[in-house]
Amino acid sequence: MKSAVYTKAGQVGLAEIDRPQIVAADDAIIKIVRTCVCGSDLWSYRNPEMEEGHRNSGHEAIGIVEEVGEQVTTVKPGDFVIAPFTHGCGQCDACRAGFDGSCDNHSGNNWSEGVQAEYIRFHFANWALVKILGQPSDYSEGMLKSLLTLADVMPTGYHAARVANVQKGDKVVVIGDGAVGQCAVIASKMRGASQIVLMSRHEDRQKMALESGATAVVAERGEKGIDKVREVLGGGADAALECVGTEAAVEQALGVLHNGGRMGFVGVPHYNNRSLGSTFAQNILVAGGVASVTTYDKQVLLKAVLDGDINPGRVFTTSYKLEDINQAYKDMDERKSIKSMIVLD
Amino acid sequence: MKSAVYTKAGQVGLAEIDRPQIVAADDAIIKIVRTCVCGSDLWSYRNPEMEEGHRNSGHEAIGIVEEVGEQVTTVKPGDFVIAPFTHGCGQCDACRAGFDGSCDNHSGNNWSEGVQAEYIRFHFANWALVKILGQPSDYSEGMLKSLLTLADVMPTGYHAARVANVQKGDKVVVIGDGAVGQCAVIASKMRGASQIVLMSRHEDRQKMALESGATAVVAERGEKGIDKVREVLGGGADAALECVGTEAAVEQALGVLHNGGRMGFVGVPHYNNRSLGSTFAQNILVAGGVASVTTYDKQVLLKAVLDGDINPGRVFTTSYKLEDINQAYKDMDERKSIKSMIVLD
Repeated sequence: MKSAVYTKAGQVGLAEIDRPQIVAADDAIIKIVRTCVCGSDLWSYRNPEMEEGHRNSGHEAIGIVEEVGEQVTTVKPGDFVIAPFTHGCGQCDACRAGFDGSCDNHSGNNWSEGVQAEYIRFHFANWALVKILGQPSDYSEGMLKSLLTLADVMPTGYHAARVANVQKGDKVVVIGDGAVGQCAVIASKMRGASQIVLMSRHEDRQKMALESGATAVVAERGEKGIDKVREVLGGGADAALECVGTEAAVEQALGVLHNGGRMGFVGVPHYNNRSLGSTFAQNILVAGGVASVTTYDKQVLLKAVLDGDINPGRVFTTSYKLEDINQAYKDMDERKSIKSMIVLD
Repeated sequence: MKSAVYTKAGQVGLAEIDRPQIVAADDAIIKIVRTCVCGSDLWSYRNPEMEEGHRNSGHEAIGIVEEVGEQVTTVKPGDFVIAPFTHGCGQCDACRAGFDGSCDNHSGNNWSEGVQAEYIRFHFANWALVKILGQPSDYSEGMLKSLLTLADVMPTGYHAARVANVQKGDKVVVIGDGAVGQCAVIASKMRGASQIVLMSRHEDRQKMALESGATAVVAERGEKGIDKVREVLGGGADAALECVGTEAAVEQALGVLHNGGRMGFVGVPHYNNRSLGSTFAQNILVAGGVASVTTYDKQVLLKAVLDGDINPGRVFTTSYKLEDINQAYKDMDERKSIKSMIVLD
């Protein structure tokens, strides 16, 4: 069968290679109907160290199931399917929490290599494949394109919006005007954002986003871009969706948020940041800062204390007069007291 | 009036200082009824460079309003109030989003200095103060203790649980067995966590947490602690609440989570981590990673595409045959195409 292969930096060719076979019981062989090039494929394409004959990094496709392993019961030969670039098990804590892209059981397999070819072997097929009713011929070319986005870019844009908890009425800023950024605009609209600003310098991409639901575009970058966004929104954004993967994009995203804002980032980190790299790999949400004392007291905590539902006062294991302040510090410092209270007359 | 002052490292004394006066129209003078020592006060207490006579860092109190500035309409002299350590404006984007601890308008004022004293000047009093019905004499000593926790530690523990989105049925791990950690246990229970594991090596603190709703304690630390937590929970945690402020505690928190888990951190970062330090200051939520393609397709996106509600396929601005794969890459690389689709027969 034919498969795309890297020839050298900046060049991709076709090679005749063996058609893949079922290897594991949870495999499926899929005949590709539509596939595509991902922004991430360009990292390999541009790489001067790429060896000739290295198989393509394509990982997005829709196609027809040709053959299945003996454990596969959800699809059968002839079925029309989306082949996600991810391969969750559907059973672990991560998958059950809706994070099958970082499945606890199938680590390191978020890639279907070599999808720019006539056939692929899709591993962990039983849960991960998504069946589409009917056959490709039942759909318009436009619809096939949209179905193909469901293999990667549309769910990736949606992920940015979901982890940033974009919700009805939110002011959202999307960083990145590529396919994922465009899909993040669509996802923000789906989730009810009231204002969606795309940061973009390309007229065609600005136009596309405006047609998909963006309410404004900002061409400026850096501090100027941040100022412009704040001017457009009349303040900081509730959510920023980082769809690029550079440190500058992350800085831009953090810069447009008001305090207490939320950044969802799906650009694969191409920068040296240990924390973000590590939490990206685990798909972990990290949030924190100074407590909202007045808000929580008024909304929930004062009532809970007065009703006797909670008894946080037990943390004060010792009490002192103001004159004995030194002892109050000393006992806490020496862990004789969990927390020292001072009683004034 | 009497006020606690630092004398030297490891020693706090009392000094006679001027009673504070109304300075701004949004000030209130409060006569302190109960105050306390915070874990963060110990950082100053232990500091060998602390100058003699430096005023105390106390910032938690309940008391009686003595006098108010002319703009203050929410409380009047004689009112019993909680004096939060935070001073939100109640009007900005951050405050309206429930992050008054990182108020956009009152930056750098999350501290009521010198509360270990007979009187304090409380700035930005009108919105930030929390009124308690009645007078201190109407409440038991135990209730006064609980009301005092509402100035800092209880809302801070609650903040960890809130930003980590602790919800019904969650498996939660609390890192830190001090007052804030104890309050994070209480907050997790309030929010419906099904399992709450406290990491603690001190028997009295373990006991207190178990009485407040913790379902298990783990004394081990590091990798051993992580293994033990996973054994107790039968897998990774949904949420980890970091209530210490050291890098080791953050590592512990990240380590106990399953992929897709959530870390809420309220320990003031005493480590050199630019990202976490920066997001803490802004109270920003950061989340991201590989998309949940199968989940989103099955739950929402496939239907939205088929119903014509969204049209993400428009990102494919060019189409090619497999034979023309090089052109497909080239056009994307040169930004002539937003995303290149490959059509197979």
